[in-house]
Amino acid sequence: MSALFSGRLSVLNVGVASFAEAINAGAGEATQIEWVPPANGDRAIGAALARLVNHPEIERANATAVERLLAAQPRLEGIAIARDALPGMGQRMILHAGPPVEWKRMCGPMKGAIIGAVVFEGWAANAAQAEAQAAGGELEFAPCHHHAAVGPMAGIISPSMPVWVVRNEAHGNRSYSSLNEGLGKVLRFGANSAEVIERLTWMTRTLAPTLQAGLGKLGELELKPLMAQALHMGDEVHNRNAAATSLLIKRLVSALVRSGAPTADVAAVVDFMASNDHFFLNISMAACKCMLDAAHGVPGSSLVTAMARNGVEFGIRVSGLGERWFTAPAPLVNGLYFAGYSMADAAPDLGDSAITETAGVGGFAMAAAPAIVKFVGGTARDALANTLSMTHITLSRSRAFTLPALDFAGTPCGIDARRVVDTGILPIINTGIAHKAPGIGQIGAGVTRAPLECFTQAVTSLAQSVKD
Amino acid sequence: MSALFSGRLSVLNVGVASFAEAINAGAGEATQIEWVPPANGDRAIGAALARLVNHPEIERANATAVERLLAAQPRLEGIAIARDALPGMGQRMILHAGPPVEWKRMCGPMKGAIIGAVVFEGWAANAAQAEAQAAGGELEFAPCHHHAAVGPMAGIISPSMPVWVVRNEAHGNRSYSSLNEGLGKVLRFGANSAEVIERLTWMTRTLAPTLQAGLGKLGELELKPLMAQALHMGDEVHNRNAAATSLLIKRLVSALVRSGAPTADVAAVVDFMASNDHFFLNISMAACKCMLDAAHGVPGSSLVTAMARNGVEFGIRVSGLGERWFTAPAPLVNGLYFAGYSMADAAPDLGDSAITETAGVGGFAMAAAPAIVKFVGGTARDALANTLSMTHITLSRSRAFTLPALDFAGTPCGIDARRVVDTGILPIINTGIAHKAPGIGQIGAGVTRAPLECFTQAVTSLAQSVKD
Repeated sequence: MSALFSGRLSVLNVGVASFAEAINAGAGEATQIEWVPPANGDRAIGAALARLVNHPEIERANATAVERLLAAQPRLEGIAIARDALPGMGQRMILHAGPPVEWKRMCGPMKGAIIGAVVFEGWAANAAQAEAQAAGGELEFAPCHHHAAVGPMAGIISPSMPVWVVRNEAHGNRSYSSLNEGLGKVLRFGANSAEVIERLTWMTRTLAPTLQAGLGKLGELELKPLMAQALHMGDEVHNRNAAATSLLIKRLVSALVRSGAPTADVAAVVDFMASNDHFFLNISMAACKCMLDAAHGVPGSSLVTAMARNGVEFGIRVSGLGERWFTAPAPLVNGLYFAGYSMADAAPDLGDSAITETAGVGGFAMAAAPAIVKFVGGTARDALANTLSMTHITLSRSRAFTLPALDFAGTPCGIDARRVVDTGILPIINTGIAHKAPGIGQIGAGVTRAPLECFTQAVTSLAQSVKD
Repeated sequence: MSALFSGRLSVLNVGVASFAEAINAGAGEATQIEWVPPANGDRAIGAALARLVNHPEIERANATAVERLLAAQPRLEGIAIARDALPGMGQRMILHAGPPVEWKRMCGPMKGAIIGAVVFEGWAANAAQAEAQAAGGELEFAPCHHHAAVGPMAGIISPSMPVWVVRNEAHGNRSYSSLNEGLGKVLRFGANSAEVIERLTWMTRTLAPTLQAGLGKLGELELKPLMAQALHMGDEVHNRNAAATSLLIKRLVSALVRSGAPTADVAAVVDFMASNDHFFLNISMAACKCMLDAAHGVPGSSLVTAMARNGVEFGIRVSGLGERWFTAPAPLVNGLYFAGYSMADAAPDLGDSAITETAGVGGFAMAAAPAIVKFVGGTARDALANTLSMTHITLSRSRAFTLPALDFAGTPCGIDARRVVDTGILPIINTGIAHKAPGIGQIGAGVTRAPLECFTQAVTSLAQSVKD
């Protein structure tokens, strides 16, 4: 005891920082360890979490679920029309991003995109008629996720739209996504002008059949190796898909040329893909959805199998908790805004694209993509730190997706809802930012976090469902 | 003085390490600073260097030379046939990599490649006849560098071969390089079998005119932005050109489709490019040559404008020292060897591709390409350290080529022969390794260094040429 008072103190201080300050001001050195109690000290949630930690049933379930995620082999099968391909797709149904949301609560860009889809389908002659139909209950709205699909930003898929078809060779399940329209005035950011509708029509009549002819010639395309290669080329395959898009073009283009499709169409399709570095995003999303759907439905598993935003609410789904969404208000994104815009102009966080982070890429793989900080903010060091911090809330490391800058360590993958609540470390998401009004489009990009409340709800629900 | 003996010592030790060890073993702490005297302590070279450091004429000359290097705007103009395009190309002339070397002193891969070129040209019916011609003095040999050209590995360019044409918009000079044949049995590694000759014939008859048709449709292609983008996608554009090749295909392919070239040729050309991630290497080399030639010939400048190896000697040229080569024996490369091979099988360092490092990419830009360590050895941290160490021997940072992992700092560029001698830090080169016998091909890759002796000769020569 006397030695303690006579020697110079070297202290690790956990939690409240003012204790450390007092020591540093005196005759010692204190290192502050960041720590907060689980669930911000909420007693009931702490008790729920305590029931779940090291629970043999949950550990077994998570081992099964995460192995299905790791073992998934998503392949690009081809392109289909939504009404023919999507399970349960209704004739007057419009799918949207995120958890369920009714028309009157929808954000501006989602409403704008739905109006555009109604005009594109020919159900209405103009925007006013389309809006009346949507508001009047003539249309059925449902999340993409309820129909094995995903869509970026507003995430609108209507019955006549072409969709990518991805099949998981290992598990047999299929997933779907819309085709990426490019940048500027596009449906997914809520634009619905004539130029947007014309582009969608061209995508349906020319882009989709030409790509399908090329894919028919090429055969199924393994997506995991392509995405892994893109991670070695500076993509994180969410907000940066420059390499993946180039690799897709490289793989596809001679099959396109040999497919017998008209030369003018082949050239136009190649130009369309080559002019949009985000073209691969929707394929990446469908691949991630396909991997995660295989891991969904394992009783007792705390693995997060979806994170998605509808511009009003952020929702997650958990493998062992069925079809239920656990939601919280969607946050605003404090990112890099394009000139002339600020957070005051932004719609809250929007889109199914957080499926990439759920599968262990996107923000979780930022260490692969230092150049993305020019788009979402921060420094190269932040990109590394973001990836490393996600190892604390994940169940595994990807075997397929590796990070050169971290000496080829696998990306942290498989979010454990328990660990999010336990550590308070929230999943990182790289995201685009839409203007809150329809028709304006993207106004920025940034790094955001999933809200804690989604995970505390899931943990509470899981604690009720398991036996001690 | 008494304070020095009573307190705890904290020492920086420069040079001989045993002094530091003695302090660390006693009651102090010594940090060892690596330092060796300039030119390994050679008195005459030290005196020459002392004349050149902070010499106003040299500083002015270097400012001019490096600004020409930085300001260069290399554009891919198209493809031509060597005999029509290369300045001074003789009818029975064969160009090779590195400084001048006579037939009997050439390394195995270079001899093998020359034999292949003679058969390809139709000057001889078989390898034995070709070898007799080469040994009998019937052919004229010259370095690519003497004809505004560069070639990887053996670097053979014969009169009928197609060459890339790159023009520096800022300075008006042109550079040339051969077209990349792919991997496996290829001329540049000394192979000369029927399959190699057939491929060269196809490249001349189909690849070159088809690419030329596409480039004619596309127009001139700015190379610096494309290379800069590739650096943001994990390439260093010497031994890793996966992104640059993909970007070239992306830029070129719709022009190829629209060019009117036969569909089968377009598909074959795209397949050829897409199957070889090194396809862009030769364009990168011609671009670097074009940038550096603009900086050559500034009287008094100590800027290194070429580093090249012929498999026997390593040679450099310096802006202010005319057409002279400063040579030393080419080193063996202690790299990663393919299964079944070792350094005992290797030809000494070979090829003009070190022109990339001379221009500030390749090994100097390794920080951009952490994934390359799987190919050349080391860790991601080594890749960063290699780039950072090159800042000590260069005159500037590139304005065009930036490094995301170093928060977009420019690559170190413009080697100053004085600084190499002064610091003893030798330029890093990422290189492929050829088998020493002709016909076998690549057996590994690694990181090597330019020999100090080339730079001490240059410094000595420069010291003789300047006034005090």
